[in-house]
Amino acid sequence: MTEKIIIGIDPGTNIMGYGVISIVKKKMTLLCIDELILHKLDSQALKLKKIFERTLSLIDMYHPDELAIEEPFYAKNVQSMLKLGRAQGVAMAAGLLREIPITEYLPKKVKMSITGNGNASKEQVEGMLKTLLNLKEFPTKHLDATDGLALAVCHFLNSNNNTSGGVKKSYTGWSSFVKNNLKRIDQ
Amino acid sequence: MTEKIIIGIDPGTNIMGYGVISIVKKKMTLLCIDELILHKLDSQALKLKKIFERTLSLIDMYHPDELAIEEPFYAKNVQSMLKLGRAQGVAMAAGLLREIPITEYLPKKVKMSITGNGNASKEQVEGMLKTLLNLKEFPTKHLDATDGLALAVCHFLNSNNNTSGGVKKSYTGWSSFVKNNLKRIDQ
Repeated sequence: MTEKIIIGIDPGTNIMGYGVISIVKKKMTLLCIDELILHKLDSQALKLKKIFERTLSLIDMYHPDELAIEEPFYAKNVQSMLKLGRAQGVAMAAGLLREIPITEYLPKKVKMSITGNGNASKEQVEGMLKTLLNLKEFPTKHLDATDGLALAVCHFLNSNNNTSGGVKKSYTGWSSFVKNNLKRIDQ
Repeated sequence: MTEKIIIGIDPGTNIMGYGVISIVKKKMTLLCIDELILHKLDSQALKLKKIFERTLSLIDMYHPDELAIEEPFYAKNVQSMLKLGRAQGVAMAAGLLREIPITEYLPKKVKMSITGNGNASKEQVEGMLKTLLNLKEFPTKHLDATDGLALAVCHFLNSNNNTSGGVKKSYTGWSSFVKNNLKRIDQ
């Protein structure tokens, strides 16, 4: 019996990476890892539309119980941060629409949770994900997709161990409301 | 016969201002002007949820043909810009969900369109809105609500005169798609 489905989303302005895992008997299984290429689209609104639609499709396909998203801590300039905020906003809106609790993680926290080292390399993160998900081969070479999956895995590790130490931002303000109103297909 | 309904939204992180106008025989009529107070809410996600829900409610209530939104050009720092971007993102997502074309305007452009002066005072903007909408008294003292209404009026003035001069960012990339797929109740 599936206990929980978690979706991790890394919504950038050029690529949106995502991963979905299911938890069965407290063990993680990979359901999906992929990315959405956005840099060929010529308007910001079209990018936002694609991010919103893809996130909504993923939610309606996998019925995740929880959504983990990256909390960026820098950008080249305020205009980049505005674009990044908008990309995050539309992805979060898809979660809000379907009443899925959203938790944010800083990139350092994701690396720390998965490898024990907040400054771990991409290869170290990938290696640990492979081990944790019991994969023979890692299914993608795309870094953004890996980041999305890493967010989902990080969220599972933190919700289990509850060792967030203030770095994790959990949206419990409305998650209780959400839980009372959740109408989802049971897995 | 109503030719067009326009909604203007100014989604901040503390207050969201909005206004709705209808166009009848090329004349504007005020349908709604109000604001949503957000600063009492204790989490950013709850704010985003409220912005998303209110925007969606307004769209489902007034069935606007077009949505105008503010394009910010500054913020205290990148974190503020991220929050502002997220607030805009969720408002835009509500428009995207209902397939309403979105146009962005810089604050300077809004003032210029309404008063002929990009540096006009709040009072000057309010005075012109009163005249343009044929109001005996201006219905609110709330500046954010006025900003929302000003966006809607600015959009009407620009869509009519088409004098954007590159300042207006119109999302025509998907608006043609939207027009072919629009399922809305005729006013």
